Amino acid sequence: MRIAEQSAKGPARTPFGNAGICKGKAHFGIQQKPEFGYGWRVPFQKITIVGVGLLGGSIGLAARRRGVAGEIAGFVRRPETIRDCEKTGATDWATTDLFAAVSRADLVILCTPLAQMRPLAERFLPALKPGALVTDVGSVKSSVVRDLEPLVAKAGAHFVGGHPMAGGEKTGVAAARADLFQNTVCVLTPTRKATPGAVRQLERFWKSLGARILKLPPARHDLFVSRTSHLPHVAAAALAGWVLDPAQPKGQAALCANGFRDTTRLASGSPEMWRDIALANRENLSRALEDFLSQLQKFRRALKTADAAAISRFFETAKARRDAWNARANSLSSE
Amino acid sequence: MRIAEQSAKGPARTPFGNAGICKGKAHFGIQQKPEFGYGWRVPFQKITIVGVGLLGGSIGLAARRRGVAGEIAGFVRRPETIRDCEKTGATDWATTDLFAAVSRADLVILCTPLAQMRPLAERFLPALKPGALVTDVGSVKSSVVRDLEPLVAKAGAHFVGGHPMAGGEKTGVAAARADLFQNTVCVLTPTRKATPGAVRQLERFWKSLGARILKLPPARHDLFVSRTSHLPHVAAAALAGWVLDPAQPKGQAALCANGFRDTTRLASGSPEMWRDIALANRENLSRALEDFLSQLQKFRRALKTADAAAISRFFETAKARRDAWNARANSLSSE
Repeated sequence: MRIAEQSAKGPARTPFGNAGICKGKAHFGIQQKPEFGYGWRVPFQKITIVGVGLLGGSIGLAARRRGVAGEIAGFVRRPETIRDCEKTGATDWATTDLFAAVSRADLVILCTPLAQMRPLAERFLPALKPGALVTDVGSVKSSVVRDLEPLVAKAGAHFVGGHPMAGGEKTGVAAARADLFQNTVCVLTPTRKATPGAVRQLERFWKSLGARILKLPPARHDLFVSRTSHLPHVAAAALAGWVLDPAQPKGQAALCANGFRDTTRLASGSPEMWRDIALANRENLSRALEDFLSQLQKFRRALKTADAAAISRFFETAKARRDAWNARANSLSSE
Repeated sequence: MRIAEQSAKGPARTPFGNAGICKGKAHFGIQQKPEFGYGWRVPFQKITIVGVGLLGGSIGLAARRRGVAGEIAGFVRRPETIRDCEKTGATDWATTDLFAAVSRADLVILCTPLAQMRPLAERFLPALKPGALVTDVGSVKSSVVRDLEPLVAKAGAHFVGGHPMAGGEKTGVAAARADLFQNTVCVLTPTRKATPGAVRQLERFWKSLGARILKLPPARHDLFVSRTSHLPHVAAAALAGWVLDPAQPKGQAALCANGFRDTTRLASGSPEMWRDIALANRENLSRALEDFLSQLQKFRRALKTADAAAISRFFETAKARRDAWNARANSLSSE
């Protein structure tokens, strides 16, 4: 019990306040400050994770470690996943019964592929507790916010979109890690209609899981990630798909080494998740691809004319920009 | 002393034979089998590394650990590097004097950017010991072999091209690692003119450093790596250069996360080395780029028409091929 160990050394501190006596389960020893206004002694008496895979499972593990929930419930599609959830400890319990999972929850986090979010929300809406906070971890925000904000508001609850910039090529709850969000950026995309208290609550939740918060309008988020995340994914998949095509000469794949492994790592991500992302952000992604294609074509022209100076500039610029970004990113994450 | 530690547990085994008493320095405890025919008790009495950076330095460290050289000399361009070579232990001694470095060497390994190999070989040729073995670690082989094989033959020595498929985005001897070649592929590109004994000797050398050997004709090697290595490098550099362009909106770079880091890692490699590679392999690379562009354009068309089935297939195929390759690669490297 991590919190119990912490208590021996003195009260644990979280963004939600000081550790203290807890009315709930023994391992969630966080005393709730009155500002959360629900009268509970933990920030959320019940958290429900809808879709317990890599991201959902990691949220469960991290939330448990930081003691921010009295109870963590999971909704899963397949009965087989229930045992995986229990085995990894990502949720206290899991079920294929959406109503049972969501009922009484103070925080509902949608962690499914994008296309399932709206249909699932429509189904669980009648079970939603009035005043609850609903959020998601989708990689595209405009469509999700447009779909879910009014739906959730109608049920008397609050929706704020979120996107933790963390993940991995491994899928499923077995790959979940309590430290997945440590030192990562979590983008929140509140609209003008969002309740400030709900936004603050979500901000504290993600901070308690180790993330840094960045607030952006949904459209701005989608434009940025089409370049920084979705385009790299498409490039990695195109590379892996083409270089490893069985139609390529025999023996070629033996010459794929570590550089290839890193450049194509993203291609091993969930195809379903990425299909949904590409479709939901297709206009931005299409424009990003167009610009990326221009860059490659420009390099190809330099290659055709053996323009050593232009080729040098291409590699030098890329290195300078990436090294500078990497140094900034490393200094931020070590703060 | 690693070899000394090994000796305590019993004789160390290398592809060159059993460890035994050594006439040379205390830490090279390998007894040479007579088949090498030079009458020395180590496979190479003197190895010279021309260009002591990440690759050259790692060869030095690995060769020392495996006790395959009586003496490891290094040629460096800049006097400052001499101290780095000594500090890391990559060479026994280093110098900016090419003649002194190469003279008496039984194995000379060119580890400079490609464009410097021929001019350097022309300069050191008069110092080359007759019967010596000369090789290189260049990422393109046709041009190197075409340039160096006749030159070295004229000096009464043997040239066999090589390309260890290992590296990293860090450059310089300070980044060198004795285990860099462990479980990697090293391609050798002997031509019909190559002396079989020289090829065998080089094969054993790389095996002793932990690499698996793959023999390919130079042109075949260049075709394969244009796709498996050079194209991923260009894609990584184009991504890093464009996404991190200062002309992009402020705040965008904050949304570059781990996926971006991995996909663009290669972009931090040495621009000089990669300019030379791109130029030396420009016809193959140009064709590889053309095919890669077609793949991206095909995906973009599917995106434009919101063709969910085609988008699914794109991501599914990429994942299936990469996962299968990765599983094969992992099983090979754990053998």
